[in-house]
Amino acid sequence: MLLGASPDVRQQIAQTASLHPSGDCLRSSPIKVVALTCTEVDGIAGLLSLREGFDFDLLASTSTLGMLVRNSIFNVLSPACVRRVPFDGGPTQTPIGLEVEAFMVAGKTKQTGAEGDTIGLCVRELSSGASFFYIPSCASIDAALARRLETASLLLFDGTLYTNDELVAQGLAQKTGQDMGHISMSGPRGAIAALAELSIKRRVFIHINNSNPVLNENSPERMAVKQAGWEVAFDGMELRL
Amino acid sequence: MLLGASPDVRQQIAQTASLHPSGDCLRSSPIKVVALTCTEVDGIAGLLSLREGFDFDLLASTSTLGMLVRNSIFNVLSPACVRRVPFDGGPTQTPIGLEVEAFMVAGKTKQTGAEGDTIGLCVRELSSGASFFYIPSCASIDAALARRLETASLLLFDGTLYTNDELVAQGLAQKTGQDMGHISMSGPRGAIAALAELSIKRRVFIHINNSNPVLNENSPERMAVKQAGWEVAFDGMELRL
Repeated sequence: MLLGASPDVRQQIAQTASLHPSGDCLRSSPIKVVALTCTEVDGIAGLLSLREGFDFDLLASTSTLGMLVRNSIFNVLSPACVRRVPFDGGPTQTPIGLEVEAFMVAGKTKQTGAEGDTIGLCVRELSSGASFFYIPSCASIDAALARRLETASLLLFDGTLYTNDELVAQGLAQKTGQDMGHISMSGPRGAIAALAELSIKRRVFIHINNSNPVLNENSPERMAVKQAGWEVAFDGMELRL
Repeated sequence: MLLGASPDVRQQIAQTASLHPSGDCLRSSPIKVVALTCTEVDGIAGLLSLREGFDFDLLASTSTLGMLVRNSIFNVLSPACVRRVPFDGGPTQTPIGLEVEAFMVAGKTKQTGAEGDTIGLCVRELSSGASFFYIPSCASIDAALARRLETASLLLFDGTLYTNDELVAQGLAQKTGQDMGHISMSGPRGAIAALAELSIKRRVFIHINNSNPVLNENSPERMAVKQAGWEVAFDGMELRL
């Protein structure tokens, strides 16, 4: 399944992907796989900090890989060290015993995002079969997504905003959550309500914007989220399956 | 003086530059002017951290501004908040009482860098006339550059490497300093020797790579640099003119 990229870009991706790491990566980090879920700057700019010859697999949709090709600044990720792997559907094996499956989720409505720009991930450990879902951006939850998440043991989900007009109300931006491709936590069509009936074992909000009142541990919003069975992620949080 | 950019890119730069900040920048930082001296990732990636609606002037050569236009990731710098100002020669006034003058310096030799990709800056406070030079990347020091620096009261200069083959010798990369556009500190054609006869009042090495032995305060290289009248910059260093 190839989505969104022009033939030109597809060819460049194919050429890059066929270059396997040659083993002459002189620096290293513990990060062996990077999976991108969107083309937003907060989802991709961190790649620039992995430029010193670290050896890793870079998993992203064909659309997102095309965006990296068009932005030459990402050429600092040397093809000798970083293998670009398109994953648009179906499980992808990684060299560290994890299987990663990408699936499309609803993204921005008011901008010209290509299909495949916003994805969620299911990450499964092959040895144990344990898995979790990672969905940092999601504009809405449809029936297909609900079915997919129905019996998840762990869900990390888009907690950008508590209410759709939060940024406007606080005078921080003229954009609503829906403009930016983010469902709200609260409200009749928010994430808490949409996922309430599913048998998800553990639910954690991630990707929380600094405008979101749940960051205040003493806020009524934090209390409401907790009472609905959700956790709020924090820096340094460790999760075990 | 317009260098390096295609007519298309020039037009885009002109359009962006003509958009003055409209005052609806809802977040702020103390940074009011950013001047770019190269198109290297370590010289421009930090811009992505200034994307939250901060209001500032972005000064860069036409060539570097063109590179930002071609890399759409930099569109996160909204034209409503960030005014892109081409500066290729002659002093540029800033809104904070400083005059900044850009001048070309020798850059990379083995890559396809455009003319104007690597520049040095002279920053002058208008009220006092005090000034300093900032040259984080420089491949060699020619007569014109030496004349310019002759009576500087403060010089911040490219201290990436101590020796030209340092990265190769340490097994960190296959590139020499000259490949990357960096003069060495040491050696008969290094920065210390090339600037030794000038009446520069204070000289500080900046932009020091983690391979450079002068970072070790007890190294003979650090001693040699100090004895030659140079300081080595450190995080949090404050300089007064």
